[in-house]
Amino acid sequence: MKITVVGLGVIGGSFVKALKGKGYEVYGVDINQESLYEAKKEGCIIEGYTDPHDIIPETDLTIISLYPSLVLDFIRNNTFKPGSIVSDAVGIKSYFLKQALEIIPEDVEYISVHPMAGREKKGYAYASAEVFQDANFIVVQHSLNKPQSIAFMEGFAHDLGFHSVKIMSPSDHDEIIGFTSQLPHAIAVALMNSDTQKYDTGKYIGDSFRDLTRIANINEDLWSELFLNNKAFLLGSINRFEEQLDLIKNAIKDNDEDALKALFIESSKRRTHL
Amino acid sequence: MKITVVGLGVIGGSFVKALKGKGYEVYGVDINQESLYEAKKEGCIIEGYTDPHDIIPETDLTIISLYPSLVLDFIRNNTFKPGSIVSDAVGIKSYFLKQALEIIPEDVEYISVHPMAGREKKGYAYASAEVFQDANFIVVQHSLNKPQSIAFMEGFAHDLGFHSVKIMSPSDHDEIIGFTSQLPHAIAVALMNSDTQKYDTGKYIGDSFRDLTRIANINEDLWSELFLNNKAFLLGSINRFEEQLDLIKNAIKDNDEDALKALFIESSKRRTHL
Repeated sequence: MKITVVGLGVIGGSFVKALKGKGYEVYGVDINQESLYEAKKEGCIIEGYTDPHDIIPETDLTIISLYPSLVLDFIRNNTFKPGSIVSDAVGIKSYFLKQALEIIPEDVEYISVHPMAGREKKGYAYASAEVFQDANFIVVQHSLNKPQSIAFMEGFAHDLGFHSVKIMSPSDHDEIIGFTSQLPHAIAVALMNSDTQKYDTGKYIGDSFRDLTRIANINEDLWSELFLNNKAFLLGSINRFEEQLDLIKNAIKDNDEDALKALFIESSKRRTHL
Repeated sequence: MKITVVGLGVIGGSFVKALKGKGYEVYGVDINQESLYEAKKEGCIIEGYTDPHDIIPETDLTIISLYPSLVLDFIRNNTFKPGSIVSDAVGIKSYFLKQALEIIPEDVEYISVHPMAGREKKGYAYASAEVFQDANFIVVQHSLNKPQSIAFMEGFAHDLGFHSVKIMSPSDHDEIIGFTSQLPHAIAVALMNSDTQKYDTGKYIGDSFRDLTRIANINEDLWSELFLNNKAFLLGSINRFEEQLDLIKNAIKDNDEDALKALFIESSKRRTHL
């Protein structure tokens, strides 16, 4: 089976690294010659192409690991092998899938996926097979998908090293991601920006502040697109979070030790269960 | 110089481990015989005591690494060597130091410190010298401290492996800690508790959610005491954070891509600078 990963950035690069030695025929497409050279040298791809037209027409599974708008451009500008599967790893699905399904040819099956693993760094140098190991994977199913193709994607994710593979609708995906991924990014940005900068903050932090702000270093083009196209779910998550934060705030204001302890006991129980 | 660490939990245990081979005579006090046995076996303490009266009267530097209220009990119930230094690692300082200075004998110097390194786990088994390496340390100075004692503490922190040592007043300490430590804990608790639990959340998370909620597993007795005794600074931090989160929320509501990008660019710049 011929697999071509388009875009050997931190996610696409992790795909080709995780596929090494798994029995697939893997190729890479990137505008960066150096990433292709590195991936080939490491034995992660058989060949690298800067022109996708040299490989996409013979590919059985195309994984387009580019920014959302570039994925759509790529679909428009390429001819895929009839009967092949085309996939992407875009962070939210409803708005994106709607556009992708409008332009995907009828003889190709489109299956959107979400590997819940990544890094705040960009580029092939930061890609690694390890980030996929024991991580979560979501296969987004729509009405045109064949059961056997979804089953293939499920097995493929396990081959990549993912521990949990969930199959769900685009809307369900966007609802849970609005909470588990987008809300944490909004929080990290707000935390970082709320610093009064009265002190030399870096000298007064421990791991907790470091961990909570790691993702405050955020790609503004990508994440503004993701946030604005998942408006309802993300705003719902932010509102529920603010309600909980207000419970803490009010308990402090009221010197209500019991209320504060109850909130801490609940969060500890939930985090342990996680 | 004889140093006794009282309480070989995750912080006290890290103190004795980090002091190993640094040329000090180190002793340990704990009610848990097993922790004392382990620390002695590992060569981190010369001897362990369950009764502090056997060692504290001859100790030059006593580091009381217990919960805030227990530190005060310990000071009340012990007789320290005249001219010796007594210290603690309690998380906030103004309210605590006020009480400690009322009961500390006049012939002893009290210097409160804050090693900005820890773990969410409890106990000697989770203590390690590594968490102190290249971390931040704060020496809290009050009007009764001698300059040479503060200078000693500064050097002592560097001996322990800390990279940055800052000297500041109790109030300044509590202001910055309200932002860098307490606010992240409040956020983590609120994030964890805002889960609607409609989905099996653990199957839909990546590192960002894991990192932001690690400290949601929180000791309710310790942290409610810390929160309620740093009310003004903590509420100020929460309010500033909520203002920033509202900027993000309003940008999403208004479809204001430019405003959203500006917030992301600012947080990225600040996080990189950190």
